[in-house]
Amino acid sequence: MRTIRRQTGHFLEDFRPGQLFRHKGGKTVTEGLFTTFTEFAMTANPLAKNARYARAYGFEGLVCPPGLTMLISFSQTVEDVSENARANLEYIDMRFGAPLYVGDTVEVETKVLSVKPSSSRPNLGIVHVQSTARKNVGARDEAVVLTWQRKVQVYKRDDDAELHPGEAAPDKVECELLLPPYDRARDYKALAHLSSPHSYFEDFELQTRIEHSRGRTMTSEHIHLTAVLDNTSQVHCNQFMIDQDPAQYVGGQLIIFGGIPFVLCLGLSSPDVGDNALGDIAYPTGRHTAPLFAGDTVFAATEITGKRDYPGRDDLGVLETKLLGHKFVKADGTAETEESPAGWKKTQIFELERHIAVKRRSHYA
Amino acid sequence: MRTIRRQTGHFLEDFRPGQLFRHKGGKTVTEGLFTTFTEFAMTANPLAKNARYARAYGFEGLVCPPGLTMLISFSQTVEDVSENARANLEYIDMRFGAPLYVGDTVEVETKVLSVKPSSSRPNLGIVHVQSTARKNVGARDEAVVLTWQRKVQVYKRDDDAELHPGEAAPDKVECELLLPPYDRARDYKALAHLSSPHSYFEDFELQTRIEHSRGRTMTSEHIHLTAVLDNTSQVHCNQFMIDQDPAQYVGGQLIIFGGIPFVLCLGLSSPDVGDNALGDIAYPTGRHTAPLFAGDTVFAATEITGKRDYPGRDDLGVLETKLLGHKFVKADGTAETEESPAGWKKTQIFELERHIAVKRRSHYA
Amino acid sequence: MRTIRRQTGHFLEDFRPGQLFRHKGGKTVTEGLFTTFTEFAMTANPLAKNARYARAYGFEGLVCPPGLTMLISFSQTVEDVSENARANLEYIDMRFGAPLYVGDTVEVETKVLSVKPSSSRPNLGIVHVQSTARKNVGARDEAVVLTWQRKVQVYKRDDDAELHPGEAAPDKVECELLLPPYDRARDYKALAHLSSPHSYFEDFELQTRIEHSRGRTMTSEHIHLTAVLDNTSQVHCNQFMIDQDPAQYVGGQLIIFGGIPFVLCLGLSSPDVGDNALGDIAYPTGRHTAPLFAGDTVFAATEITGKRDYPGRDDLGVLETKLLGHKFVKADGTAETEESPAGWKKTQIFELERHIAVKRRSHYA
Repeated sequence: MRTIRRQTGHFLEDFRPGQLFRHKGGKTVTEGLFTTFTEFAMTANPLAKNARYARAYGFEGLVCPPGLTMLISFSQTVEDVSENARANLEYIDMRFGAPLYVGDTVEVETKVLSVKPSSSRPNLGIVHVQSTARKNVGARDEAVVLTWQRKVQVYKRDDDAELHPGEAAPDKVECELLLPPYDRARDYKALAHLSSPHSYFEDFELQTRIEHSRGRTMTSEHIHLTAVLDNTSQVHCNQFMIDQDPAQYVGGQLIIFGGIPFVLCLGLSSPDVGDNALGDIAYPTGRHTAPLFAGDTVFAATEITGKRDYPGRDDLGVLETKLLGHKFVKADGTAETEESPAGWKKTQIFELERHIAVKRRSHYA
Repeated sequence: MRTIRRQTGHFLEDFRPGQLFRHKGGKTVTEGLFTTFTEFAMTANPLAKNARYARAYGFEGLVCPPGLTMLISFSQTVEDVSENARANLEYIDMRFGAPLYVGDTVEVETKVLSVKPSSSRPNLGIVHVQSTARKNVGARDEAVVLTWQRKVQVYKRDDDAELHPGEAAPDKVECELLLPPYDRARDYKALAHLSSPHSYFEDFELQTRIEHSRGRTMTSEHIHLTAVLDNTSQVHCNQFMIDQDPAQYVGGQLIIFGGIPFVLCLGLSSPDVGDNALGDIAYPTGRHTAPLFAGDTVFAATEITGKRDYPGRDDLGVLETKLLGHKFVKADGTAETEESPAGWKKTQIFELERHIAVKRRSHYA
Repeated sequence: MRTIRRQTGHFLEDFRPGQLFRHKGGKTVTEGLFTTFTEFAMTANPLAKNARYARAYGFEGLVCPPGLTMLISFSQTVEDVSENARANLEYIDMRFGAPLYVGDTVEVETKVLSVKPSSSRPNLGIVHVQSTARKNVGARDEAVVLTWQRKVQVYKRDDDAELHPGEAAPDKVECELLLPPYDRARDYKALAHLSSPHSYFEDFELQTRIEHSRGRTMTSEHIHLTAVLDNTSQVHCNQFMIDQDPAQYVGGQLIIFGGIPFVLCLGLSSPDVGDNALGDIAYPTGRHTAPLFAGDTVFAATEITGKRDYPGRDDLGVLETKLLGHKFVKADGTAETEESPAGWKKTQIFELERHIAVKRRSHYA
């Protein structure tokens, strides 16, 4: 009997500038998927929890929080783009479009924008891609739900393989946050008790940093969560592979899929900055600055970097923020600082530029 | 940049007798939430598992088991009442109303009945509250699904803060178990094989104690389960916080949210006492008597303390019981007893007065 | 107060040849159950992920993957047949019928085919049963979804109890894979990018063995997964019981329910052999060859053993395969082999004869 060793996913030498992937699978948003991730991340926005509230605001029903839209869309690209990646380096120009509901089906395409060998590590290189997620392709309500670019560090299959370095121009993708209109006939104020009284657009001051109060300890649950998202990258779920060559893999242990701290930081921030948002507009840049492992406790903070009017909507404002995630790492002998207790070192794990469409108290409460 | 440290939840000095909380969020029951908790707890009653059976009994579809109705309703009160609590001391006068279905949205209000400082611990006190959960507020099928009181031990934000001790009278809340009528035209007997043949009203004898056969080991899954319920209390999910001051927190480790053993004991008891129930009527009193941690195995027993007719329904009886939960704690050198093997000590963790509406064999089998 | 120790499930002396169990409970497939297991197992077939694709193929909506149909059906039989089992020995003549959808309700019956005492262990014996799962009993779309036989090693309640050895003939159960017809009017090719381009019927060669590339580390999540399936066997979830008598239980630790590696091996194989299947037809034989524990990483391989026409459908072929599961066990001092790295021993855990209905490229791409 002849043995075939099938490999899934692409390696560095497989990518070509301008190449287009129409990703396999696609994903229908079930109530199981919706609940697992909305609640896992401690999302506080009633649009994602209370169907009565969501419908009163003109949405069709419970709305996927931005972190879930991102996780579902992003994960569809993993097999083709990053199943054999070492790390995801950067998120660029991520923009939200139509709201995503339970029952919608997401399908994603990706264009390769550039391929670059690593100067220092012969078995690695950087692939830059642009991806766009559409819902309900072919149906009346077909719409773009998310578009983004990312840079990812990908392994070579064969250290001596020839690469296809170069660049291709990104496509211009129409993708703007689609929100139900403000309707004076609706009694929004009757529902105001269901969201925080402290997170309207008027409440935010420039140049303030909000330390969100909650922390959340991650467990080996991350393996299951990652599988539920169709993220098949082996560095998140195959301990045997890592045990064979610990030095090759960050930390010598299973690394938590970056989408998990991404959505968790959004969730931890939501009581303070997301509770009166109608949607996230865009994430111009973002990156993971340190790996996360089972046993770590995740915290988040938000810096308010800008406030401006929302074009065409006087009921909303645009809040420009920086979302930061961190954990504390045991560091015996370290003295206490303003930020860390003795014996611990505060370590930033994530940062994201985040623009949010926030309700004005004047119109809603 | 100015730093703001937001705190979520209230502290002892924030509570005032008579104060009313209309809790934020609300919660729509999805099929994801339904399955996670119904099945986690090993619920055996076909009303919560088999839609054909539930509809044949006159329900609209799968019925939330009582433990799930309790968990959803209770958790809505956590941020305002017990996010900064040390322990939940007592459940009082918990009564069930309308059945809760997938698709229903629950919203909850709480009135503060009393505030009392602790005589022995200056940083703690007891808050007594009355909460009521309604479903589908504003719709034709709006109904109370659960009402209850509880006493909770809450931390002070500031040890020197002035309290507002005192009492307020509880509201009179109409809340009686709402069941579909018995209908002679329905062929209940054709479905009798789907529930236990041994748990009809006629089968129970006063002054018996049923040791339920199954045990269930809890894992760190409790962190995820607690988040799925919107229970944001940090003692269940923030290991870093506990590591900073282990002596301050029960056991120096994450304590499992009391709602978990509550619903697990109901589930473990269900093959013997819940399988032919149409609903739980009331829990007059209940309390957690020891903490539960990841790694513990939970067992349950039920004592039959009373049997009486169900007013207006000769197809049902009211079974009065005491539900008890326990675990075994390693205790090296302990001799074997009738209850515990050598080296282990049986430890009660939970007790609940429980009144159940149970089918009579004469009408159903 | 009198104490009653209720036992759930049957013991060896309770079984009689010819005996029929109409299992309690039944199970409605919710979106929570669907997502948990489809995704846990990394199922790649778009029929189970993408409702647009499934409907375009003539199905009513998302289709339960074969592993989920098997898990739901099988688990309904556990309380009566194997709650008090030591191990499941063999699957025999498992055949699939109608597709199972979200919203369907499954109910199962089992006939005892034989009871045999163990020659070597006085407290054990083998029970051989035949089970059939129907969906939507009494409704217009009532149909058989799965039928199978299995042999299970069951404990005696009392070592001295009298058994009822003997045999009964199996029933003839009509159960053939029900698929939507091929329809020339449908544009299947427009969806071809959603499944693998490498797994059409034409792509498989006889006498090849495909080593599937992905591995998946199991965690203590298995306890929760097993509960969600209504599998109440205590060897999967009651660590205290095992701690009392470790020698009595395989490995002295909680053993993972065999249904978990069963469905996981199906999932791990799906990118290579399941992605263009319209359904699994039959599993003539199967068995677990070694236990699986939390911490183990599961891998799978598929041997192509036969190819033949699908009767009456020239758009499909029947692929006959052997699905194999394995893990690596630490074995200090072991030399490297072709199959295992130094210090590890490759251990087969599962094997399954598997016949699959696979699309022909000529008709679909």
